[in-house]
Amino acid sequence: MFGNQIAGNISAKGKKTFQSFDPKNNCPNTSYFFVATEEEIDLALTQSSNSFYSFCSGSPAERAFLLEQIVEQLIELKSEISQAYCKESGLSLSRFDTEFKRTVDQLLLFASYLENSKVDFISETSANQESSLPHLVKKKIPLGPVLVFGASNFPLAYSTIGGDTVSAFAAGCPVVVKAHPFHPETSFLVGKAIKSAIDNTNFPQGIFSQLFDDHFDVGQKLALDNRIKAIGFTGSYTGGKALFDLANSRQIPIPVFAEMGSINPVFIFPESLKNQSEFWAQHFAKSISNDAGQFCTKPGLFFIPNTENGKIFISILKNKLVQEPSFTMLHPTIYNRYEIKKEQLRNLSNGEFIEKKGSLSQLEGRQGLLTIDKDEFLQIELLKEEIFGPFAILCFYDSHDELLTYTKELQGQLTSTIIATQEEIINNEYVIFNIKQLAGRIIFNGVPTGVRVCESMQHGGPFPASTDARFTAVGTDSMLRFMRPIVYQDNC
Amino acid sequence: MFGNQIAGNISAKGKKTFQSFDPKNNCPNTSYFFVATEEEIDLALTQSSNSFYSFCSGSPAERAFLLEQIVEQLIELKSEISQAYCKESGLSLSRFDTEFKRTVDQLLLFASYLENSKVDFISETSANQESSLPHLVKKKIPLGPVLVFGASNFPLAYSTIGGDTVSAFAAGCPVVVKAHPFHPETSFLVGKAIKSAIDNTNFPQGIFSQLFDDHFDVGQKLALDNRIKAIGFTGSYTGGKALFDLANSRQIPIPVFAEMGSINPVFIFPESLKNQSEFWAQHFAKSISNDAGQFCTKPGLFFIPNTENGKIFISILKNKLVQEPSFTMLHPTIYNRYEIKKEQLRNLSNGEFIEKKGSLSQLEGRQGLLTIDKDEFLQIELLKEEIFGPFAILCFYDSHDELLTYTKELQGQLTSTIIATQEEIINNEYVIFNIKQLAGRIIFNGVPTGVRVCESMQHGGPFPASTDARFTAVGTDSMLRFMRPIVYQDNC
Repeated sequence: MFGNQIAGNISAKGKKTFQSFDPKNNCPNTSYFFVATEEEIDLALTQSSNSFYSFCSGSPAERAFLLEQIVEQLIELKSEISQAYCKESGLSLSRFDTEFKRTVDQLLLFASYLENSKVDFISETSANQESSLPHLVKKKIPLGPVLVFGASNFPLAYSTIGGDTVSAFAAGCPVVVKAHPFHPETSFLVGKAIKSAIDNTNFPQGIFSQLFDDHFDVGQKLALDNRIKAIGFTGSYTGGKALFDLANSRQIPIPVFAEMGSINPVFIFPESLKNQSEFWAQHFAKSISNDAGQFCTKPGLFFIPNTENGKIFISILKNKLVQEPSFTMLHPTIYNRYEIKKEQLRNLSNGEFIEKKGSLSQLEGRQGLLTIDKDEFLQIELLKEEIFGPFAILCFYDSHDELLTYTKELQGQLTSTIIATQEEIINNEYVIFNIKQLAGRIIFNGVPTGVRVCESMQHGGPFPASTDARFTAVGTDSMLRFMRPIVYQDNC
Repeated sequence: MFGNQIAGNISAKGKKTFQSFDPKNNCPNTSYFFVATEEEIDLALTQSSNSFYSFCSGSPAERAFLLEQIVEQLIELKSEISQAYCKESGLSLSRFDTEFKRTVDQLLLFASYLENSKVDFISETSANQESSLPHLVKKKIPLGPVLVFGASNFPLAYSTIGGDTVSAFAAGCPVVVKAHPFHPETSFLVGKAIKSAIDNTNFPQGIFSQLFDDHFDVGQKLALDNRIKAIGFTGSYTGGKALFDLANSRQIPIPVFAEMGSINPVFIFPESLKNQSEFWAQHFAKSISNDAGQFCTKPGLFFIPNTENGKIFISILKNKLVQEPSFTMLHPTIYNRYEIKKEQLRNLSNGEFIEKKGSLSQLEGRQGLLTIDKDEFLQIELLKEEIFGPFAILCFYDSHDELLTYTKELQGQLTSTIIATQEEIINNEYVIFNIKQLAGRIIFNGVPTGVRVCESMQHGGPFPASTDARFTAVGTDSMLRFMRPIVYQDNC
């Protein structure tokens, strides 16, 4: 039985509980989690709000120390966390290792950034005595308590101590996490590590609380509460848009950064395939199918030249994709949604639909491809939407004008990938311009999966990829989501 | 008869027209302006959208040249503009001169910024070959066509070529202006200057259009159109909030930066008044009454220590305020709204209400003060809202705890002003912290009116002062409202 984690205490006042699910073994896990009550929600918010002053009065170095302490405590609990992670997500131990390392590296990156950069300074303009113009120092200050929604597909790196929490902490904002119901035990253990880390600092425990719920009530109540000043979310369009609308319906609207995924188009130019069809087919087969394609940056739509090389590329891709291993999906609901979406596509389209054959374990995502023509792409809206799973749509194009038409039909994206020679990039300036308009990250001759966590990353793109393209969910700039500029005039 | 200005052409296809009003002479002006038709709106948007590629493909230096050309053309038309300005706003010639200079300086500031800064560069992270990590260059790109709403109280500096248009141009965004109906001729002349300036560049005329309407239809249609990618607005809470809701109701929501004014609280600490009551009373009397208090940064609420010095300050302020000259207000609707608001306050409050006596010209704003006590402040919501006019509310406080209570009752502000000694600032850390939470600009020992246009300015604060506290409406950082980050991965 696991209770809610409120400012360092465990609280189990409610009557409702839920269990998580073990996708590998296709059965519920044995632990129960208490859904937070109104009283518990209120307490978490009060503690969060009350801790804000002392948290953000601390120095950036003190916040860096907190992040480093969290790393130590995570390492302490690593083996416990790994067990919970695997049994709640169906992801492999090797994926756990990768994600654990990434989570640790992310904490250390922010710690180092806090130690080495003037994180709160923006600019200074000197007084001009002659014209009686004042002296101005522009800084950044934290917004206040941030509500973080854990993501289903990254139980560590985008959840309880994922990018949202780390950037909010780095900014000086207390955090209330609404744990993702798919991996509550993993979240609980990470929350435990955070509590121990806070104990080793001078900060109050109020800076972190984590609440459980397998429905929307707790999240909605938190999002509507006046004490919450910003929201970070990673998940579906439906969830992100609902939160965005909720936050804007408040008497005092607040910023919501919802990263809602995308289909991540890949634009392949003809010359780039010369003698490279096999190379790219292999790379993309892995990028589509790894971890059952459950990445927000999985390439889901390819524009391929209607040439001999284009056809060779497709035929190799088909081969390679079905040869890749299949992976267990995160949850029955995700598996079922994937199956339904594939079925819809198969029914709507006259294109060639292929799938990996043979028997798979239950809840393993079966790789597939759908090859369509231009008319279908323009007519069927579903073809422009994310498919969460190891699936991609392939669409031929005959001319650069046709490619241009496609770019104008697409919605906002997290990434756009360009496979092209330098010459093709230079000679297709206007097409490239339109591809750039689509996304927050443009990959040249690479695959979009694997988001580097660093200062220069941009993860977030025009709506509906995210709710505010002017910010990023990954990298040190993600702190900017939870800060605002303030100028001090003549404070001397 | 004045038509709409669409991509360099004058268009008068509609049947509806309107006139502006001369507040000094309390009568309509003689010119008529054509309300834009649906067809004209569509044409302006098409031209704007089509011009985006070539506009933002130009270099920052070319955009700087455009801004410099606009300055030249404004100077060319200065005397014509000044006549229209005065007869449409009731503002004085000397105020025109100040605002004209400010508008020119603002254009030149942005031009110089474009020439001397790497405006589109954010950061770069090198590849790490060993770990196969990609090379990343993070830049800023413009969002696309921006819709700008001219403000009533700054016919130049916050209107057709005001801060919103200048920052959008500097960012590389085409602009469609919905001219403010109070000063359409001023706007038209400025639009004419912009057209001539564009003629001297290689940019297409589509980057600028200006449409007229004395109702909300044109603005609403523009705001809802998919080709508009962001909105800049300066005006009332009602107008700004309506636009914000409209923009968020779109299938693809867009960012709205609405600067909606505030009451701009002034917190006076006891020691600061020692021998300084007269000094501060004189400064604030001017700051409240200048140009009839029609500034979004006019101080409208004072927290004054309930001490001998505090009482002296109030008594001098009363004297000084009524001795200040009165000014014609911008429009009968603004004058009437001011009169109604004062009447409401006088009826709601038991406090002492004073006004300047004697006869004034029609539409001149009569200065006034209302002195209230703590209980009234906590009970009456209207006391926390902006009064657009030469009026302020004075509220005594007895202790720092009381001051703290006040800070927690206030909504988001553009500015908060602290009048205090260095010792008081240091000794009241928690009160000062709470004052900082309120606003985007904190003035120490000065008046909030007079916003310096420079790199470090922050003009915009927590809701409802503006719709997004993470951005500024004034200063070179205001470009960030109309740009978004993008990262190029391995573009080499």
